[in-house]
Amino acid sequence: MTHLSRRTLLGAAVGSAAAASWPRLARAAAPGPLDSEIARRHDEAVQRLQAWIREPCIAAESRGYESGFPFFLQMLRDAGFQKVERVETSGKPGVFATLDAGAKRTLALYFMYDVKQADPAEWSSPPFEGRLVDKPGFGKVMVGRGAVNQKGPEAAFLAALHAYRGAKRKLPVNLVLVAEGEEEIGSPHFGEVVRRPEIAAVLGKSIGVFMPHASQDPGGEVEISLGGKGVVELELVASGARWGRGPSRDVHSANRARLDSPAFHLVQALATLVTPDGAEPAIDGFADSARPLSAAELEMVKRAAARMNEAKAKELLGAKRWLRDEDWEHALQRLCGRPTVNIEGLVGGYTGPGGKTMLPARAVAKLDLRLVPDMTAEGALAALKAHLQKRGFGDLEVNMSGGYDPTTTPADSTFVKTMDAAYRKAGIDPLLWPRSGGSWPGYLFTGGKPLKLPAGHFGLGHGSGAHAPDEYYVIESSNPKVAGFDGAVASYVTYFETLAG
Amino acid sequence: MTHLSRRTLLGAAVGSAAAASWPRLARAAAPGPLDSEIARRHDEAVQRLQAWIREPCIAAESRGYESGFPFFLQMLRDAGFQKVERVETSGKPGVFATLDAGAKRTLALYFMYDVKQADPAEWSSPPFEGRLVDKPGFGKVMVGRGAVNQKGPEAAFLAALHAYRGAKRKLPVNLVLVAEGEEEIGSPHFGEVVRRPEIAAVLGKSIGVFMPHASQDPGGEVEISLGGKGVVELELVASGARWGRGPSRDVHSANRARLDSPAFHLVQALATLVTPDGAEPAIDGFADSARPLSAAELEMVKRAAARMNEAKAKELLGAKRWLRDEDWEHALQRLCGRPTVNIEGLVGGYTGPGGKTMLPARAVAKLDLRLVPDMTAEGALAALKAHLQKRGFGDLEVNMSGGYDPTTTPADSTFVKTMDAAYRKAGIDPLLWPRSGGSWPGYLFTGGKPLKLPAGHFGLGHGSGAHAPDEYYVIESSNPKVAGFDGAVASYVTYFETLAG
Repeated sequence: MTHLSRRTLLGAAVGSAAAASWPRLARAAAPGPLDSEIARRHDEAVQRLQAWIREPCIAAESRGYESGFPFFLQMLRDAGFQKVERVETSGKPGVFATLDAGAKRTLALYFMYDVKQADPAEWSSPPFEGRLVDKPGFGKVMVGRGAVNQKGPEAAFLAALHAYRGAKRKLPVNLVLVAEGEEEIGSPHFGEVVRRPEIAAVLGKSIGVFMPHASQDPGGEVEISLGGKGVVELELVASGARWGRGPSRDVHSANRARLDSPAFHLVQALATLVTPDGAEPAIDGFADSARPLSAAELEMVKRAAARMNEAKAKELLGAKRWLRDEDWEHALQRLCGRPTVNIEGLVGGYTGPGGKTMLPARAVAKLDLRLVPDMTAEGALAALKAHLQKRGFGDLEVNMSGGYDPTTTPADSTFVKTMDAAYRKAGIDPLLWPRSGGSWPGYLFTGGKPLKLPAGHFGLGHGSGAHAPDEYYVIESSNPKVAGFDGAVASYVTYFETLAG
Repeated sequence: MTHLSRRTLLGAAVGSAAAASWPRLARAAAPGPLDSEIARRHDEAVQRLQAWIREPCIAAESRGYESGFPFFLQMLRDAGFQKVERVETSGKPGVFATLDAGAKRTLALYFMYDVKQADPAEWSSPPFEGRLVDKPGFGKVMVGRGAVNQKGPEAAFLAALHAYRGAKRKLPVNLVLVAEGEEEIGSPHFGEVVRRPEIAAVLGKSIGVFMPHASQDPGGEVEISLGGKGVVELELVASGARWGRGPSRDVHSANRARLDSPAFHLVQALATLVTPDGAEPAIDGFADSARPLSAAELEMVKRAAARMNEAKAKELLGAKRWLRDEDWEHALQRLCGRPTVNIEGLVGGYTGPGGKTMLPARAVAKLDLRLVPDMTAEGALAALKAHLQKRGFGDLEVNMSGGYDPTTTPADSTFVKTMDAAYRKAGIDPLLWPRSGGSWPGYLFTGGKPLKLPAGHFGLGHGSGAHAPDEYYVIESSNPKVAGFDGAVASYVTYFETLAG
């Protein structure tokens, strides 16, 4: 459930928009003594990140927690968190940590300590080594699973705390941190951490919750996303056994003459989920509570459309036309403003090369539904089930595997204004963006049950390849507009100082 | 493209229908001297079959032809064919062989010398060994790839020729044999053999063409099928690249908001191919030339319905209801009388466990269309393409991977009447069946281009497991109603003698 990079979602920025080069912005961002402490501790911090990459926790494989979890707790203690607690959940343990600096304001952090699976055979250097390699156009990057998603940015954040300690400077904000070890399987138990009364009470005193993030695209541009769509991931399963029609085991396809086809039953159900042109959801009641983009949000999209490169976006997506042949601005409005019904995967019967004359007893569609405010995951699921029931597809299994509500953070919150100001101090003119087309479980912080805090992602720096081979995070940047590791560290210092005023 | 066993297609026979036990029928079928010669040569014939199973030719893997093909040619020469010719094709070689016995009548044979792939890990004894094992309820069976499909029955046929030679009896019919080594990949080049003018001319003088076959179900019942449906196997492919809409590579599913979905495009196309209840083809013009079952054919089905066990058939298929809740007789009418559109497989996007938030650029449906007279494979394909074009799905690739026209053989031909008489001499009351719900390339012999001969399958004996692990063929039968190897041999002798009058 990686937060989707702006590069992928919006298309590359117009190159000239990021006018300032990094060195100037780095100096402006971090005051002198901290600046030099960051530089002095560069090797130590990079080695810490490397050591962390060598301790993968992988939820899908239930791997590495025995040593990886204590390693993560120790990192937090070393960075200065006075209280670091293991929080039991129905799944892998969460973490609750606090750093009381005696400051006026408290900032909350959301960390993940797990990473996605990795197949070493697909990597050019071992995924759990954290090797430093030269990447043309980027500089020296660290290659490893979790390098950008999310250990690199999180390690940069912790390095900022080390810089304060090393420079013997008092941290200007208090910190409260919650973390989970199951982000990569859809955060199924993280609510059990956030909603603990004693934890929610402390989080509730913060100005907002961010996850450290490598927010820069390859051109150095930054987006501040004010939310994310909700999501429901599910499998729709048609089977002869449950339908009571067609075969309950795979049989020779000659029998199609006298038996119903569960695969066609699935196909017919799927066809009802979208409009005749396939463009929009057609599930009864699904989008009834979808709130249109506000005037302010439409204005943000208009500004983004003017700055983003449509041709580049289409090239990255391998696409020639937007939905319904709309223009760039309207395509971007849809991206952040409209709910979707998508087929992630189709699996049924014989899937190998060539054909096999069989009548399959079962067929599956993997769907994701994206939700905008004020839709809810629960409401979307109920609408889908009622829609199917009404049309004679009530026998289909609807197996929701994960999902959550949309998340929204007000643009005029101190939390967001501080992000904007911190980026501007670094010479960057960030794009405000109403809502990511992707999803992250920010609703736990923003949804009002019980917390109603601002929440988002923050940090300079660049990386890519989340969930893919050769994931990387820039350590020494060769592009003056893109922050390396020390620049990312400095961006957190800038946030603290800006917030403290 | 295995000829579908009657057991699977019709359901098991009512047990009492096969009144006579094999030994009585065996004696009636084969005259004394041949009968004892068959018994005398039993071990030699079984060993020949075993040796053949050890020489697999597998077209899908292009394996074994170097030694397996000459082995097959030598088997034919040893059995008494005076002329045995290799026939070059664009694929694996075919065979043309003749045995001139100076008889009045000529019988043609269709052999296949290839077998399906086999994964030894799935077998209880090695697939290419031909081990004799005890199978409860059946007796001693030979286990091996090709045991029933089609080496066992073909070896039994050749053993009948050896019996004539051994008993120094003149064969009462002339034989002409055509064979192919690519049956298991859909007979793509067999037409090049059959349509050679010099071969077609010789075939044309025969009373018809049969393939040796283990026609008995486990209860001993036999069906004479008067034809097979035609078939078109194809892949329907939707892709963003070809459509010019949606992504041309897999992208994050957030982009569904602004991009079309090739998978939904495929689903919408598929939904138009069947009636709203999913039961029947709805491709424009597809079934226009489908000939309804004749009064005589309806009468055959009625007779079959009375003899077959509906409950057993449903149990074997794991089915509770026939299409449109019709009764047994109407379900059987559909099985042999109606064309079909079937989804063999669906493959698109992410097909592994759980979900993956992607918008796939491509999705594929594997279809088979079954055809009845007077439909043609060419006509069916053209109808599908026109149907898709007319409905805005002209961008879908329609990749036909194989197929051919329906095949029909008249019930009143000498060829069929001889089958019926031969079975009756063995004490069996065979079911005449209008047309198999499955398909075989009999149209090459029956379709009038240039040959218009009767064609079908013949032979006593039983086996099962074609294309599956532990394929077997009964050698020594423990069921008095089911022929073992010698009984199968005798059934060919009976056919010859019956034909010769």
